[in-house]
Amino acid sequence: MHTSRPDGSHPIDDGGAAPLTPAELRAIAESVPPRTLGALALPGFQALDLWGPLEVFGDCAPAIQPLLVGVDTAPVASAQGPRAVPDVSLHDAPRLDLLLLPGGNVRAHADNPALRAWLRQRADDAELVMAVCNGTDLLAGTGLLDGRRATTTKALFRTIAATHPGVRWVSRARWVEDGKFVTSSGVAAGIDMALSVVARLAGERVADGLAIHLEYTRHGQADRDPFAAVHGLD
Amino acid sequence: MHTSRPDGSHPIDDGGAAPLTPAELRAIAESVPPRTLGALALPGFQALDLWGPLEVFGDCAPAIQPLLVGVDTAPVASAQGPRAVPDVSLHDAPRLDLLLLPGGNVRAHADNPALRAWLRQRADDAELVMAVCNGTDLLAGTGLLDGRRATTTKALFRTIAATHPGVRWVSRARWVEDGKFVTSSGVAAGIDMALSVVARLAGERVADGLAIHLEYTRHGQADRDPFAAVHGLD
Repeated sequence: MHTSRPDGSHPIDDGGAAPLTPAELRAIAESVPPRTLGALALPGFQALDLWGPLEVFGDCAPAIQPLLVGVDTAPVASAQGPRAVPDVSLHDAPRLDLLLLPGGNVRAHADNPALRAWLRQRADDAELVMAVCNGTDLLAGTGLLDGRRATTTKALFRTIAATHPGVRWVSRARWVEDGKFVTSSGVAAGIDMALSVVARLAGERVADGLAIHLEYTRHGQADRDPFAAVHGLD
Repeated sequence: MHTSRPDGSHPIDDGGAAPLTPAELRAIAESVPPRTLGALALPGFQALDLWGPLEVFGDCAPAIQPLLVGVDTAPVASAQGPRAVPDVSLHDAPRLDLLLLPGGNVRAHADNPALRAWLRQRADDAELVMAVCNGTDLLAGTGLLDGRRATTTKALFRTIAATHPGVRWVSRARWVEDGKFVTSSGVAAGIDMALSVVARLAGERVADGLAIHLEYTRHGQADRDPFAAVHGLD
């Protein structure tokens, strides 16, 4: 049994081994090469698609520095109403090691050739490219997922799969990795995908520790997907 | 087995009864008296504490209209870095039926008498007052939780409980309701608390449907808390 410390610091526990203290987590984060995460913030973004992974990656500082990337740097309204502020625009974004494409009202942006060209270029340069929910629709629109395995939100699965027949769609998956591309199922699944990326970059113990810190019960297995059956996708 | 529709619309399923279609969900949302939610966005807010509940409440439009409330309306950086924009300031906020206090770097704001007075006044006027994670520390600082049952993040539970000895702290709880006050455990627990409030306002069927829409596995019982034991709080 692990107890919180008298000074109120957070003991991070990995559910069996010795708990990771904040100092230990910080030491691990400092030992991992620093990476810049660029998270696309387009008008109508789905709130949790974006901010769930931002919570996970932002808690890995200094290993990961998250930036919001907008078409420009004007505030951007989420599909739910509240607004976020891009740190950089498409044009002035620095090198992005990790790219995150949240879902939401992405259909409104699907036919923007400048955005598509930017995504192709930045995905090419990136170490990892992630899409959450129907953010996969935007990523698949670049052609970069053709011939690759990917998943997307189960509510829109059939429509998105029909729109991009070149992708090897996986219907029952919380998330799918294929090379540098990592795609997740709907909304909250982005949190599990982000934790799996943290595990890939910094180790499973850090991912488990972060999940405990967030009091989040991980869906820790990529191929376990309780929501596929709800939508008749077995 | 419920399948998604040929037009790609979202079938919302409550896990047994007939699935709620988007049109049905919308009809329910339109039948519920509209409420304004004011979510406090202070510098250093915890990303998911704020945006998890915003996703849930924002998806209930038009039954709930979420507004971010800042000290002023300048962009506010989260503890994770990325910024949100307040819709209104403390001074010009309209009547707020629902009040949401996320956690994060709340200690920096704990001794602000103007904020404390605002919280007391707005809590008094509100129908429901919610706090996520160590947002409870801010709420307890108003004295309004004295004699009431409440919970908070398990990582800082002992420290926060010792700071506010007049509160009847519940150590093992995903969330706690006491009259108009609803407090949750850490970070992701705010999503479960928000869903419980949706259930209170619009029915359990809507809350279950929303969770499925978000592909979020609810912690549906307030007194089930897997993270209390991790921190030796049994």
